[in-house]
Amino acid sequence: MNSKIRLGILGGGGDSLIGVLHRVASSMFDQFKIVGGVFNPKWEDNISFSEKIGIPTDRIYKDFDTLVAEELKLPEAERIQVVSILTPNFLHFPMAKKLLENGFNVICEKPMTTTYEEAKTLEATLKKAKTVFAVTYTYTGYPMIRQMREMIANNVIGNVQKIDVQYYQGWINPVIHDEKLRANTWRLDPEKGGISCCIGDIGTHAFDMLEYVTQLKVGKVLSDLNYVYDDNKMDVDGTVLFHCTNGVKGLIRASQIATGEENNFTVKIYGEKAGLKWEQENPNYLYLLEDGEPLRVLKPGHAYNSELSLDGTKLPPGHPEGIFDSMGNIYKGVAKAIRKEPYDHGEFPTMIDGVRGMKFIECVVESHLKGNVWIDINE
Amino acid sequence: MNSKIRLGILGGGGDSLIGVLHRVASSMFDQFKIVGGVFNPKWEDNISFSEKIGIPTDRIYKDFDTLVAEELKLPEAERIQVVSILTPNFLHFPMAKKLLENGFNVICEKPMTTTYEEAKTLEATLKKAKTVFAVTYTYTGYPMIRQMREMIANNVIGNVQKIDVQYYQGWINPVIHDEKLRANTWRLDPEKGGISCCIGDIGTHAFDMLEYVTQLKVGKVLSDLNYVYDDNKMDVDGTVLFHCTNGVKGLIRASQIATGEENNFTVKIYGEKAGLKWEQENPNYLYLLEDGEPLRVLKPGHAYNSELSLDGTKLPPGHPEGIFDSMGNIYKGVAKAIRKEPYDHGEFPTMIDGVRGMKFIECVVESHLKGNVWIDINE
Amino acid sequence: MNSKIRLGILGGGGDSLIGVLHRVASSMFDQFKIVGGVFNPKWEDNISFSEKIGIPTDRIYKDFDTLVAEELKLPEAERIQVVSILTPNFLHFPMAKKLLENGFNVICEKPMTTTYEEAKTLEATLKKAKTVFAVTYTYTGYPMIRQMREMIANNVIGNVQKIDVQYYQGWINPVIHDEKLRANTWRLDPEKGGISCCIGDIGTHAFDMLEYVTQLKVGKVLSDLNYVYDDNKMDVDGTVLFHCTNGVKGLIRASQIATGEENNFTVKIYGEKAGLKWEQENPNYLYLLEDGEPLRVLKPGHAYNSELSLDGTKLPPGHPEGIFDSMGNIYKGVAKAIRKEPYDHGEFPTMIDGVRGMKFIECVVESHLKGNVWIDINE
Amino acid sequence: MNSKIRLGILGGGGDSLIGVLHRVASSMFDQFKIVGGVFNPKWEDNISFSEKIGIPTDRIYKDFDTLVAEELKLPEAERIQVVSILTPNFLHFPMAKKLLENGFNVICEKPMTTTYEEAKTLEATLKKAKTVFAVTYTYTGYPMIRQMREMIANNVIGNVQKIDVQYYQGWINPVIHDEKLRANTWRLDPEKGGISCCIGDIGTHAFDMLEYVTQLKVGKVLSDLNYVYDDNKMDVDGTVLFHCTNGVKGLIRASQIATGEENNFTVKIYGEKAGLKWEQENPNYLYLLEDGEPLRVLKPGHAYNSELSLDGTKLPPGHPEGIFDSMGNIYKGVAKAIRKEPYDHGEFPTMIDGVRGMKFIECVVESHLKGNVWIDINE
Repeated sequence: MNSKIRLGILGGGGDSLIGVLHRVASSMFDQFKIVGGVFNPKWEDNISFSEKIGIPTDRIYKDFDTLVAEELKLPEAERIQVVSILTPNFLHFPMAKKLLENGFNVICEKPMTTTYEEAKTLEATLKKAKTVFAVTYTYTGYPMIRQMREMIANNVIGNVQKIDVQYYQGWINPVIHDEKLRANTWRLDPEKGGISCCIGDIGTHAFDMLEYVTQLKVGKVLSDLNYVYDDNKMDVDGTVLFHCTNGVKGLIRASQIATGEENNFTVKIYGEKAGLKWEQENPNYLYLLEDGEPLRVLKPGHAYNSELSLDGTKLPPGHPEGIFDSMGNIYKGVAKAIRKEPYDHGEFPTMIDGVRGMKFIECVVESHLKGNVWIDINE
Repeated sequence: MNSKIRLGILGGGGDSLIGVLHRVASSMFDQFKIVGGVFNPKWEDNISFSEKIGIPTDRIYKDFDTLVAEELKLPEAERIQVVSILTPNFLHFPMAKKLLENGFNVICEKPMTTTYEEAKTLEATLKKAKTVFAVTYTYTGYPMIRQMREMIANNVIGNVQKIDVQYYQGWINPVIHDEKLRANTWRLDPEKGGISCCIGDIGTHAFDMLEYVTQLKVGKVLSDLNYVYDDNKMDVDGTVLFHCTNGVKGLIRASQIATGEENNFTVKIYGEKAGLKWEQENPNYLYLLEDGEPLRVLKPGHAYNSELSLDGTKLPPGHPEGIFDSMGNIYKGVAKAIRKEPYDHGEFPTMIDGVRGMKFIECVVESHLKGNVWIDINE
Repeated sequence: MNSKIRLGILGGGGDSLIGVLHRVASSMFDQFKIVGGVFNPKWEDNISFSEKIGIPTDRIYKDFDTLVAEELKLPEAERIQVVSILTPNFLHFPMAKKLLENGFNVICEKPMTTTYEEAKTLEATLKKAKTVFAVTYTYTGYPMIRQMREMIANNVIGNVQKIDVQYYQGWINPVIHDEKLRANTWRLDPEKGGISCCIGDIGTHAFDMLEYVTQLKVGKVLSDLNYVYDDNKMDVDGTVLFHCTNGVKGLIRASQIATGEENNFTVKIYGEKAGLKWEQENPNYLYLLEDGEPLRVLKPGHAYNSELSLDGTKLPPGHPEGIFDSMGNIYKGVAKAIRKEPYDHGEFPTMIDGVRGMKFIECVVESHLKGNVWIDINE
Repeated sequence: MNSKIRLGILGGGGDSLIGVLHRVASSMFDQFKIVGGVFNPKWEDNISFSEKIGIPTDRIYKDFDTLVAEELKLPEAERIQVVSILTPNFLHFPMAKKLLENGFNVICEKPMTTTYEEAKTLEATLKKAKTVFAVTYTYTGYPMIRQMREMIANNVIGNVQKIDVQYYQGWINPVIHDEKLRANTWRLDPEKGGISCCIGDIGTHAFDMLEYVTQLKVGKVLSDLNYVYDDNKMDVDGTVLFHCTNGVKGLIRASQIATGEENNFTVKIYGEKAGLKWEQENPNYLYLLEDGEPLRVLKPGHAYNSELSLDGTKLPPGHPEGIFDSMGNIYKGVAKAIRKEPYDHGEFPTMIDGVRGMKFIECVVESHLKGNVWIDINE
């Protein structure tokens, strides 16, 4: 009778913030029920955490492999249907791969993998698995981002002619300017964090977002990254010039040394007829600019918004929703896909986003290391 | 083992927005589990709704009285511990009363009752019951409102010397200007909506909020209400001048004919040393004004916030939370109270808020009807 | 050949800010030439100031009476045509009266007089004189205020149904809370400052502004003023409820104890179809609100603005103009009137504004002193 | 006795906006008196314009050469002391050169010349002339820009570590997308407009501004310009990556196809301790960002501002000044220099700014044309 989708969770225990985000998001539309998982590597922590959040412990497993093995023994009607992977980055790939190979649907935190090669492998795995796969570029779930995508698709701004995306934070300052700290932070250790810090962590959000809202494809990139200190091995800031495959020019600015910025992710798309702007920290405002016309400010929940946007708003105008609600919308889309209900391609980011994101990171770093030259990301 | 609090829900079925708000809020901190309720008056709707939201139907009851009767038959360890009342306003009082009389904890939507007399009766009932009672003035759960309260309590702005609270909406325009519609809307029918529309619905939020953040008590009020048309029986706009019991002067401005306003609830408190401002539609910004000093803008999640404020923020700065999160914080406070854990008086609004709110409405209407004269609300 | 209007100035010497404002404003459209005046009561200061600002000293006079006498001896084609009165408030009336009686045009700083009786006398004097008289309610010269007036006149927002004007400052805090200072400040001394401090100084701006933009007339007022201390004789804060003669309700909020506010003059007019908002500290933004429509933000210089608004903008959109430019527009209007060129009634505030302003102050104080009762300002 | 500086003006007649800007600016501090000039090439227009703006026609000359010749005949105490050059760009150089060679002080609109070579020649001329020379990068006169410069100089934000300057407009859209118009607009004609449209017109403002506020020197640049159409010969958009000579990285984003943008010139400077932001369209707000601290918003006129900033504010806080006032401050600085009074190097832009600006344009275009490579601008 209870038609909730059975959700398993990997990671997200203890004080994990990402754990809270996914749990709340999964509950927002009454679509998912957490039935099991592996929250912590240590068994006692795992159990005490599941008790703390009120999940029956009978399907809390000692490790990932046990989860897969035990769940497969259950009849399909009881088995976990979808697994959210919230573990450290390097575990995303092996876990996702095995889950897909065993017929599970997967919701994977970003970055999807640690290399483009892994991403390609995972893409091939999914092709065989034919299950649902989502990568949680959380910000694309905001109603006004969805509205931006639809307005561009519906030619409200005309042909796109300039793209400018900014993702500025200042959090790495205390780390980067301390010689010891920067030598001992996993984020700045290529062995643990992959080949890029700033571009990998937030530059990819900017990249995914611009392709999401414009539905254009980035063609080639030229980057200038900033490591600040010679002994620092990972970028903490960088600008990426790009040309889309249709020739439209744009740039991504990403920084973790933009002192005092919190999570200032700003998207500006200029078309021949109008422009659109959006800022993540005030996510309920979408600015429509036209030459010679009053600026217009669109907000969620109004009938003038598209269906895709309205589907992501739970309350009437003037009742601000936030990032939990954005992630909730992504989970809602995944639920539709799992239930094989109709859904829009804009409802959640997929394997394609995950793969392109990894390619983007590698090309941006390559451009910088080769002396700030153009690299084609589609080759 | 599963320590979640057993929650029952009355109302909130079908397309109810308030139902979504309470369900999501109750899940946010892994503290509550919905185990039963009466979502709809019609049995089929009741059942189909409970299935839709994935609640087992075995404790979905045909009506409120059955719920009480059947739950009381269950051993205490299985029985519903707290009931959220989301039914039409006139049902709040009888339901809350019976629940309290039978030992249940109660979370009640506002307005708590339809008259001050009912409110006083309910207060007396609670005194005997000794259970937990909360009335959901949702907006007091916002982290920056909590921060405002704490800053005022800690003398950051000095003695309060002026209070200005605005709650402006424009939604009633299409109704009020149409003779037929205004004659046939329950909100404008004193038989159904009580003695006040605008003051009762949103003026009370303003009143509760100002007492919440300043911890002062309003003493006397003088109002000028606006019915717009002679044949209209309920206020749709009004200004309330007031003096606090300590002499501080202030005003509340409430309107449902502030065309184009969505839910513009703005709180301004000026003290001898500094002022504080907050706007509900941008709830993550708290403005601190000092003569001759740069304006300062505080945001949630920073270490400079009080414990009470930080307790209501789930993610780091720059990740906007919204009204669901505000209600979630109120539920979190109620959970602590039910579990008899220590909590702050600022964590959720109580019977005192509910009773004062009803008295406020009656005094404001009296002031207007008597010709805009001062009425003491504490008599 | 040189067609500039010959301007004389009374007051505004030394460090006077109002002097700078008028001098710059008078020069903005190449319409006025300062030819003489009395800048300071002391002769040496008068002369040294005129030299400092580069005005030939031959028509700098030792006092006001000499100025009138000597200028009248000059042929009309050389005589000062218009005099700007920037002296202390109590001198406005006698100076303006004598100037009008002798055929001069007058630009008078506000408050126009110190009592309503004086204002009536001056009005009668002007009726005989038939010269041009302007009172400098500076803020009505802003392009977006002019645009607001025109939009309301052109029914863009439908019938006005609610008026809310705020004028908040915090500057008097250091004075009011110091027993000695508040006893020794001319602003708080009824002998020197008239019967009102806050309402007289800034409340009148709010009153004039609302009548300017709506073209409605205030009918009756009910006020609650705030003196803060028993030994303080002048209001430093107050709220005025009012009904327009056509029944529309509204309120004026004025304060000099709104701690941290600089010059926060905000105008909100709600009509049946839309609302308009404007804030003096960001004067180049006019907000148009409609239920269910995106907020629109109008800015100066665009072709969508009215002629009256565009006449007050010197540069293209995006080049912010400020309060000097607003006053410059008022001077521009006065120049047209003096030259008997066609001009709009919205181009500068006149005797009517001055007289009504004085009546407003007296009625507001009367309402408060009589116990917060309604007073008709048109009786 | 009249100590005003004698100012001559070249250009700025007819409907010229730049003419209004300079006339008003020159009058703002009672320092300049316009005594002559050549406003229009046609004699009748020249005369009628001078009459319209009330300038005696006796020193209105038929052309530039006559002005120089005739003024030199006058005794030095009567001669024009400083000439403002507001003519079309290609005339700036020959006029400035001849004026300097003849001992005049010069205020020159930007771009100072049409080529870097001309700029170097002019620099050499000035070295001999030893008069005062200013180039009107208008925006550096804003009080909060001056405050930004001083705060950076005083180490308020620590070592600068990232620079991001944006100058976005949308005005060229109607021109660029029309084949005929783009072929026939002087701005897009290299014969008339020089080698760059967007970078030359507004990119240079961004460049000058960043060097002004940080007092750092740009070292090398790498640009990607945008001509939008193959048949279009001038850039209308472009991004410039740069490294300062001390290694600090930054970027300039300039566009005339940022649809709907008016004059969105935004300056962001991030230091190790804090960041600073400013937006030209809201010039009275300066944002100070610190990690983990509330955002602070500084405004003009407050005692917390530097002397240089306060020198550029005429009224108390809350009385918004604008772009006329900014230019007025530059004229004020020039007046001090002409009078040989002490002044700060930040008071007006000089020949150094003019020369560097021309070099910047040439290097940016070279970088683009060579395939987006690094070019050292100091070689």
